[in-house]
Amino acid sequence: MTHPLFAKHEDTLQKALAAIETRGYWSPFVEMPSPKVYGETANADGEAVFKAHLNKIFELDQPSTGETVGAEVSPFGFPLGVRYPKADPDALIAAAAEAQRDWRGAGPQAWVGVCLEILARVNRSSFEIGYSVMHTTGQAFMMAFQAGGPHAQDRALEAVVYAWDQLRSIPADAHWEKPQGKNPLLSMHKRYTVVPRGTGLVLGCCTFPTWNGYPGLFADLATGNTVIVKPHPGAILPLALTVRIARDVLREAGFDPNVVTLLATEPNDGALVQDLAVRPEIKLIDFTGSTQNGTWLERHAHQAQVYTEKAGVNQIVIDSVDDIKAVARNIAFSLALYSGQMCTAPQNIYVPRGGIRAADGTLSFDEVAQAIAGAVQKLVADPARAVDLLGAIQNDGVIRRIEEADQLGRVLVESQALEHPTFAGARVRTPLLLQLDAAHDHASFTKEWFGPISFVIATDSTAQSLDLAGAIAAEHGALTLSVYSTDEAVLEAAHEASIRGSVALSINLTGGVFVNQSAAFSDFHGTGANPAANAALTDAAFVANRFRVVQSRVHVEPKAAPAVAG
Amino acid sequence: MTHPLFAKHEDTLQKALAAIETRGYWSPFVEMPSPKVYGETANADGEAVFKAHLNKIFELDQPSTGETVGAEVSPFGFPLGVRYPKADPDALIAAAAEAQRDWRGAGPQAWVGVCLEILARVNRSSFEIGYSVMHTTGQAFMMAFQAGGPHAQDRALEAVVYAWDQLRSIPADAHWEKPQGKNPLLSMHKRYTVVPRGTGLVLGCCTFPTWNGYPGLFADLATGNTVIVKPHPGAILPLALTVRIARDVLREAGFDPNVVTLLATEPNDGALVQDLAVRPEIKLIDFTGSTQNGTWLERHAHQAQVYTEKAGVNQIVIDSVDDIKAVARNIAFSLALYSGQMCTAPQNIYVPRGGIRAADGTLSFDEVAQAIAGAVQKLVADPARAVDLLGAIQNDGVIRRIEEADQLGRVLVESQALEHPTFAGARVRTPLLLQLDAAHDHASFTKEWFGPISFVIATDSTAQSLDLAGAIAAEHGALTLSVYSTDEAVLEAAHEASIRGSVALSINLTGGVFVNQSAAFSDFHGTGANPAANAALTDAAFVANRFRVVQSRVHVEPKAAPAVAG
Repeated sequence: MTHPLFAKHEDTLQKALAAIETRGYWSPFVEMPSPKVYGETANADGEAVFKAHLNKIFELDQPSTGETVGAEVSPFGFPLGVRYPKADPDALIAAAAEAQRDWRGAGPQAWVGVCLEILARVNRSSFEIGYSVMHTTGQAFMMAFQAGGPHAQDRALEAVVYAWDQLRSIPADAHWEKPQGKNPLLSMHKRYTVVPRGTGLVLGCCTFPTWNGYPGLFADLATGNTVIVKPHPGAILPLALTVRIARDVLREAGFDPNVVTLLATEPNDGALVQDLAVRPEIKLIDFTGSTQNGTWLERHAHQAQVYTEKAGVNQIVIDSVDDIKAVARNIAFSLALYSGQMCTAPQNIYVPRGGIRAADGTLSFDEVAQAIAGAVQKLVADPARAVDLLGAIQNDGVIRRIEEADQLGRVLVESQALEHPTFAGARVRTPLLLQLDAAHDHASFTKEWFGPISFVIATDSTAQSLDLAGAIAAEHGALTLSVYSTDEAVLEAAHEASIRGSVALSINLTGGVFVNQSAAFSDFHGTGANPAANAALTDAAFVANRFRVVQSRVHVEPKAAPAVAG
Repeated sequence: MTHPLFAKHEDTLQKALAAIETRGYWSPFVEMPSPKVYGETANADGEAVFKAHLNKIFELDQPSTGETVGAEVSPFGFPLGVRYPKADPDALIAAAAEAQRDWRGAGPQAWVGVCLEILARVNRSSFEIGYSVMHTTGQAFMMAFQAGGPHAQDRALEAVVYAWDQLRSIPADAHWEKPQGKNPLLSMHKRYTVVPRGTGLVLGCCTFPTWNGYPGLFADLATGNTVIVKPHPGAILPLALTVRIARDVLREAGFDPNVVTLLATEPNDGALVQDLAVRPEIKLIDFTGSTQNGTWLERHAHQAQVYTEKAGVNQIVIDSVDDIKAVARNIAFSLALYSGQMCTAPQNIYVPRGGIRAADGTLSFDEVAQAIAGAVQKLVADPARAVDLLGAIQNDGVIRRIEEADQLGRVLVESQALEHPTFAGARVRTPLLLQLDAAHDHASFTKEWFGPISFVIATDSTAQSLDLAGAIAAEHGALTLSVYSTDEAVLEAAHEASIRGSVALSINLTGGVFVNQSAAFSDFHGTGANPAANAALTDAAFVANRFRVVQSRVHVEPKAAPAVAG
C-alpha cells in the first residue's frame, strides 16, 4: 500500500525526521557545484539549457489564454526575452479544483512521495535553476547556485518533513471502547481523513524566488493542497522551471498536473494579485515581499491562512571584542554579500560613542567605524573579485534608495558603481556605510533600507544598543540580531533583547559563519513573533494549519468483551 | 531539574500522550458523580459550597477597581446575586505583563506541571463547578456535572498534552557541525528558547462556559502565556471558580497569580470586549459564541491569533433504516438533550419525500416524520423526567426564537412550557419540530436556529439530502453530520459529503452514543475547515501557534575533529 515514490525516498525522509529532532547539521543536497556530484558537464550543460530559454516561449502545457507574458531583465544587463503562457486566474482556479479530486484522495504518503521526487529532480536541475536565479535576482553565480539550488531544496525538504511529522501523528482509524458499568461496552470504529484546505497561492519575491518560494509550495503540496505559483514578475524563470518539473512528476505519477500551475505576469501585477488573493477558493497564501503588500494580505485575505515574510531592520550590537579585524571582516562580508539584498543582511550597527573594550585596550567609536569601513573597502577594492560577492542590484528601486540614503548622515564608505568584467551592462554597486547617532537619527534607522545600505550608529552605551535592538525588532521587525561581546553579562542581556524582539541571535561571529546565513534543519528562519514574519521556516506551526482532519464514527462489535450475539 | 508539579503528574501526561496517538477511549476524570470516587459527601458539600456563593461578593485577590459587577440569573428561576470584583482591563493587561516575566522563564515543564495541578484541583471541585454550571447555563445537573466537570477537564488536559507534544519536539539546544572540505569544521552551539506569544484572552459562552472555555485557557497556559478570562456575563461563576483555583496553584508554585485573571462584566459588554480584543498586548483570542461576534474578531483582531467557534447548521440524513424506532429514539434524545442548546445538536433532518426503505418494507415521509415526532413527545411526556434531560432555557432570546420558528412550517411537535418539579421559576420548553420542504424553505433551514428547534425536511432523494448536507456545512458551517443508511454506497457518499462540508460524520447511531457527544482524546470537535469553527478541539494546529522559538548560536570547539589549538 506504500506509494512507490514514498518508498523510493523513505530513507531521505527518515534522515530528515532525525535532523529536525536534533537540529544539528544535515543537508541532503550538496551545496558545492561539484562536477563529482552533479556531473562533469553539469555546469556547462546547465548554462546552455538556461541560455536556450532566452528569447523563446517557455513551454508549459497548462490552461492558457494563448497569449504570452514576461518582461524579465537580467540585473547583469540584458533582457531575458522569455515569454510565458498567459493564464487566466479563473481558469487556474478551476483547473486546481478539478485536479484536487484525485490528489486529495491519494493521501499523505502519495503527497509526500511526490514532493520528494520533485525535489530530487529539481536538485538535478540545480545548474539550470542556478543560472536562472542569477539572471533574475542579480546574485553572483556561486550564491545563485547554492541559495537558489541546494539550500532552497533543503528548505523545501524541511517543510515536507515537518508536514509529514504532523501528518503521521494522526491515526488513520481508531477503535473506541467505553465502559458502561454493568451495561455492554459502547464500541465504535472511527476513521480520520486528512483533508487539505484547498488551493494555495505562492507569491514569489524577486531576490530569492526559490529559497523563499519553496517552503510554502512544498508545505502546501505535502499536505494535499493544489498550488498556484505566482512568481514576482522580475523573477519568473526559476519558479517556472520548478513548476514544470513538478508537473512532470505529477503526470508520471498518474495525477492531474494542474495540482501545480504557474501564473506568470507582467510587471505591476498588484491588482491581479489582490483580486486573486481574496478569492474564496484560495485557502493558503505564502508571501515574501514588502510590508505594505504583506500587511494588505493579512488584513484582507480573511478566507485564507496567510504566511508572510516582510521587511525588517537587522541589527548588530558591538560591545567589546577580542580581535576587531576579525569582527570587521565578518561584518563587512555580511554587508557586501549580494549587496545587502538579503532579508537577513544587517543594517544597523550600534557602537557606544565612548568606544569599546578590545583585547589590547580600548577602541574609540571612530576606530571601530573605520575598521568596518576599511574592511568593506578592502572587500570591494578589486572589482573582478568584488562582483563575485556583490552580484548585481536587482532593480532600479534599490539604486534610487542608495542615492536617497546617501543624504542621511556622514558617509563612512561611499557606494560606487563597478564595471563587471564579464557583463558590461551589469548594475553593480558597492555598499554604502553611513554614520548616524541614536540621539537624533531615530527616524532614519528604524525603517528598512533594503539594499547595500548600513549605518554605524553611536549610542550612549551597550545597554542602549541592546534596548534599541530589542525594541526595534519588536516594533519594526527583524530576522537577525548579532552581538559582539567578551562579557558574559552582556551576552545574557543580548539574549534577553533577542527574546524581547523575538529575533534570532548570533554571538561573536568572526569566522566562516555569517549572520545572513540560515541553515535548514538547524536555524529557524524568522520567528513569526515580530513584524518581519508571521511564521518561521520551518516549524510545526508553519504546516499544521495547511490541513484539517474530518472524522467519521460507527458502532462496531466490542473487542474487549465477548461479542454480543448477533 | 524536573519541575515538581511536572514530576507529580507525569504519569497522567504519559497516558495522555498515548491516548492522542491512538485516539481510542481514555478519560482520566471520572464522569459519574460517584461517591466512591468523589467522596461520600461530595455532592452535598458541593451544593452547599455553591449555595454559599449566592448573594455574596466573590473573593478574588486580583487588581480591582474596588467596585463589583455581576447579574447572573439561574435559568431555573432565581438570581444568583454573586458580585465579582470589577477589574479595569488596562490593569489586568499590566498585571499580566508583570506576571509574564517569571512565568515565561519557567519553561515548558513548569507550564505543563502547573496546568496539570490546576486540573487535578478543578476535578476535586467538580460538584461545586457542576452546580454553578447548572445554574448559569440551565443544564440539568447530571449534564452540568459531566460536561461542565470531568468532560471539560478532559478537553483541557487534551489541550495541555497536545501543547506538550509540540513543546517536547523542540530541542533545548543543538550542536551543529558543518564539514568544510579540507578546512576545519564549522562548529556551533545553538540554543532554542520557547517564547510564549504574550497575553491570551478567553471569551466564554453562556451554555458551556468550562467545556468551551478550558481548551483555550489551558492551551495558552501550557505554552507559557498569561491569560485574561472574560466569561459570558450570564455564566461567570464556573470560570471564576476555575480562575481562583488556577491562581491558588500559581501562587503556591511561586508564580505571580496574575498569570491568570478574571474579567467579570455586566451584560452588554460588547464594546468593552471589542476594545480589549484589539489591544496590542492581546496575542491570542479564544472565542465561542455568535457568528457575528466571532467574525468581527477574525476580521479586526489582526494582532492576535484568533480561534473561534461560531454558529452552524447540524444535519441528519435519513436514507434507510433497520429499526425506525431505534433511529427515532436516538434522534429525539439528541433534540431534547439540554433543549437543543448544544453547538452539536442536530437541526435539519432530511428525509426523501418518497419515503425510505426499512427492514420490513418502506416507510413514507410522514411515517418517518411521525416516528421522530412520537419519540420526542414520548421523551417529554413526563415533565418530572423530562426536565432532567431538557434542563432549562438559558436566556429569553431562545424563547423568542422558538416563537419565531413556530411560523416557519407545518408543526409536527409543538414546543410547550413545562413546570419544573423542583424549581418553580425554571424556564423549561419542550422541543419544537417542524416540517419543511427542500423545494421552497431553503432560506429557513440554511441558518442556525439555536435552541430546541429542528426541521424534518422533505427532499427529492437521498442524493439531494447529501448534497444539501455537504453544501450547507461548507457554506454555513456545521459541527456534526449524521447519516442513517443500510446501503454501503450511500454511506460512502455520506463520507464524501462530510469531506465536502468538512464536518464530522456519525453513522447509524441507534444506541448509547448521540451525535451531540464529542469525546476528548478521540473525537475532534469541529474541523476548523467550515464556518462553524476555525480550529478543532484539539489538534496540533490548535496549539502550535501559541508559542514561538527564538534561537541563538555561537561558535564552539568542534566535537567531531581534533580541537583547533586555541
